[in-house]
Amino acid sequence: MSRILVVGGNAAGMTAASRAKRLDPSLEITILEASSRIAYSICGLPYFLSGLVRDLSELELYSPESLMNERGIEARVQCRVVELRALQRKIVVEHAHPARRDTLSYDKLLIATGYRPITPDIDGVHVNGVFTASRLGDADAIASWLSSKRARRAVVIGGGYVGLEVAEAMVARGLTVTLVDAATQIFSTLDPDMAKLVEDELSLHGVHVMTHRRARRIAAKRDGDVDAVELAAGSLRIPGDLVFIDVGVVPSVELAANAGVALGPTGAIAVNDRLETNLPGVYAAGNCAETHHLVTERPSFIPLGTVAAKQGRVAGENLAGRRSRFIGAVGTSIVKVFDIVAAKTGLNVREAEHAGFSPIVSTVVARARAHYFGGAPASVKVIADRDSERLLGAQIVGSARAASAIDVAAAALTARMTVREASQLDLAYAPPAGALWNPLLVALNTLTRELER
Amino acid sequence: MSRILVVGGNAAGMTAASRAKRLDPSLEITILEASSRIAYSICGLPYFLSGLVRDLSELELYSPESLMNERGIEARVQCRVVELRALQRKIVVEHAHPARRDTLSYDKLLIATGYRPITPDIDGVHVNGVFTASRLGDADAIASWLSSKRARRAVVIGGGYVGLEVAEAMVARGLTVTLVDAATQIFSTLDPDMAKLVEDELSLHGVHVMTHRRARRIAAKRDGDVDAVELAAGSLRIPGDLVFIDVGVVPSVELAANAGVALGPTGAIAVNDRLETNLPGVYAAGNCAETHHLVTERPSFIPLGTVAAKQGRVAGENLAGRRSRFIGAVGTSIVKVFDIVAAKTGLNVREAEHAGFSPIVSTVVARARAHYFGGAPASVKVIADRDSERLLGAQIVGSARAASAIDVAAAALTARMTVREASQLDLAYAPPAGALWNPLLVALNTLTRELER
Repeated sequence: MSRILVVGGNAAGMTAASRAKRLDPSLEITILEASSRIAYSICGLPYFLSGLVRDLSELELYSPESLMNERGIEARVQCRVVELRALQRKIVVEHAHPARRDTLSYDKLLIATGYRPITPDIDGVHVNGVFTASRLGDADAIASWLSSKRARRAVVIGGGYVGLEVAEAMVARGLTVTLVDAATQIFSTLDPDMAKLVEDELSLHGVHVMTHRRARRIAAKRDGDVDAVELAAGSLRIPGDLVFIDVGVVPSVELAANAGVALGPTGAIAVNDRLETNLPGVYAAGNCAETHHLVTERPSFIPLGTVAAKQGRVAGENLAGRRSRFIGAVGTSIVKVFDIVAAKTGLNVREAEHAGFSPIVSTVVARARAHYFGGAPASVKVIADRDSERLLGAQIVGSARAASAIDVAAAALTARMTVREASQLDLAYAPPAGALWNPLLVALNTLTRELER
Repeated sequence: MSRILVVGGNAAGMTAASRAKRLDPSLEITILEASSRIAYSICGLPYFLSGLVRDLSELELYSPESLMNERGIEARVQCRVVELRALQRKIVVEHAHPARRDTLSYDKLLIATGYRPITPDIDGVHVNGVFTASRLGDADAIASWLSSKRARRAVVIGGGYVGLEVAEAMVARGLTVTLVDAATQIFSTLDPDMAKLVEDELSLHGVHVMTHRRARRIAAKRDGDVDAVELAAGSLRIPGDLVFIDVGVVPSVELAANAGVALGPTGAIAVNDRLETNLPGVYAAGNCAETHHLVTERPSFIPLGTVAAKQGRVAGENLAGRRSRFIGAVGTSIVKVFDIVAAKTGLNVREAEHAGFSPIVSTVVARARAHYFGGAPASVKVIADRDSERLLGAQIVGSARAASAIDVAAAALTARMTVREASQLDLAYAPPAGALWNPLLVALNTLTRELER
């Protein structure tokens, strides 16, 4: 019987534990989770804030009890792993209730410690009423604050996925929302022209978007509660009863790094395609680990649940003694913002240039189904390498129907298709369900013409 | 200046003419179309019958006038090509109004004569009020019949795409509808288990579905109008004021075959990947031509507008002197039936066996987005070859959202992915827009487990 320890009880850790136990029921698997919950969907946080999700339990897939009953996997919560002694194959854990330290042995260890939000260097960032989101408990804290303080004005600092979703949730709750981004655009995963469409959608729904403005200080009232966000330029002061910060995340690698686990160029844990670290018997998966990027063919840091779950699945197979490979990822992501969806896969123009490609782009506006079925046209941007004519990335802003083609582009990237090959993909059409030429294909056709010039 | 003739003014012919003219504006291109319209969407016919499309002109992209004005391409309608003299590079055409014969010369000729519906061997099939659909004029004829005869009961013979869509349109118009299919299932492009879900949806919306029943005779009233469909078994008689027949289509190849153009094993025109026939300067594209099937790697007959348009594009490039290749197709198709969508790509189980594979399948029911956003789960079936573990096909029945993953499967088939590779595709997720594991990935994961057994 083999003993497996998993540090971190979310996407990667949970998936790995479940997969390993399924493949080999004789494994003794223990998940160690620092927070008080396991197996939750942090992505659901904005929808708890908006009121769509009535109870946080709706976002929890398993409790430690149900995990043991249904899967035979032990999970200890409020249990922080403070030291990894890799040579001895032991870890030291600190339990919160009752407070004590234990040393546990393992045959194989999976580090799935995830990410944590960056706390920006802003004066007053720890004032009451300033929040970030990385654990389900944050949802509780934000919701309680909103109710108990009767918040009417929210300031969101940072226009990433979560910032956009929280801004929408705050509008849904009736708050006045200002979104401040230090960059010259919001949602920097998209090219500026595509991000502008998202900005327009936010503005259309009453969100006051301020780009290229850096928050300098968060001011508090006398009672210590947040009062306003002061901007660096122009001495502007944005009143707010709540401030939500989403300026990026970093991999949680302290445990690993202190134990001699090698980090990669991105600062996340370096892993091979078996999800093995440099230390024998120590694996890493999820948002603390690097991901092989299938377009750049370099290590990348992609802090998304989708990649974490897939890495977890492969790690779980290897924990169970298989020899499974993770093929890598292309960084596909999607966000709904009011009535539109914005999606991206692969590289944007800046990322393509940075990776040494010579990007050439085409952007089209096309309908995702027959005009008599209605719906607004979507904007589709495709990016290729001028020399190799290889597809490098795609961005879609519009209806959910149109945006679903981002997954087709992701498959084309994975298969290293050229623009020509991808433009001939045999995609489905019926007037109510698609277009004779899917908008993605229209964009690819246009790009083939650009390449011919 | 080169003279190009295009026989057939729809998906393939129109696309080819437009593409060629765009690449080389000096080309003199003439489209010869036997019917009275060019560049229309026959796929829109059911939505004209249902009333969603108010006027047939909504389904017409170009008239001969607008095609000349906007694209500089001549189109002659009601102009039938009756003979191809390939050695002389000439064709003989019959104009309807005024009736005359012309002989036209060409440097390159594209045959894009499309398909025609099979008229089944049923006694009384030519009775008044019995219709098929292949031209936009059929829509007019059916709609006029429905109105003028105050039709209350419709019988649809054959449960293919168009049969299903017309059945729904008839229900939308308030008719009582019976759908009769000679096979043991409707919609035989799907496996029986998946087709059953479509049958259930039809039944749920009041369509009386009768499978494994063959129409023997269509009876007429004294005035010559259709009265009922009599079935071969059980002497059942289904009263109907209108009968719509959709029992399949065949490629229109008479012109080509009479001129010595070689047909392939499917009976459609044999073409190479440049869309060239065996005769110099004679190309074929669209639903009269074969398509290289990327899964079976054999010639196939895929009578769909999507494939026709893509072949037309490549043919047009070659007509303009380029050297373009058509990669082939995987037979992706989709149909909406009341509140669900049914989609398929690649091979079903029967087709996989017929092609010499050893199919292994997995079917799952999974949600296409977070449960708190609602929507019914979708059924996803994936088929692989047991020996090579290569993905062979996929079928999805459920919401449009879930069915959109059929295009991802199509891309995976085109790239010849194994089940494992496809199961790791980096697809987008956000709670309102997707699932952490896309239902397609859930099915593929299940199939990897089946393959491990």
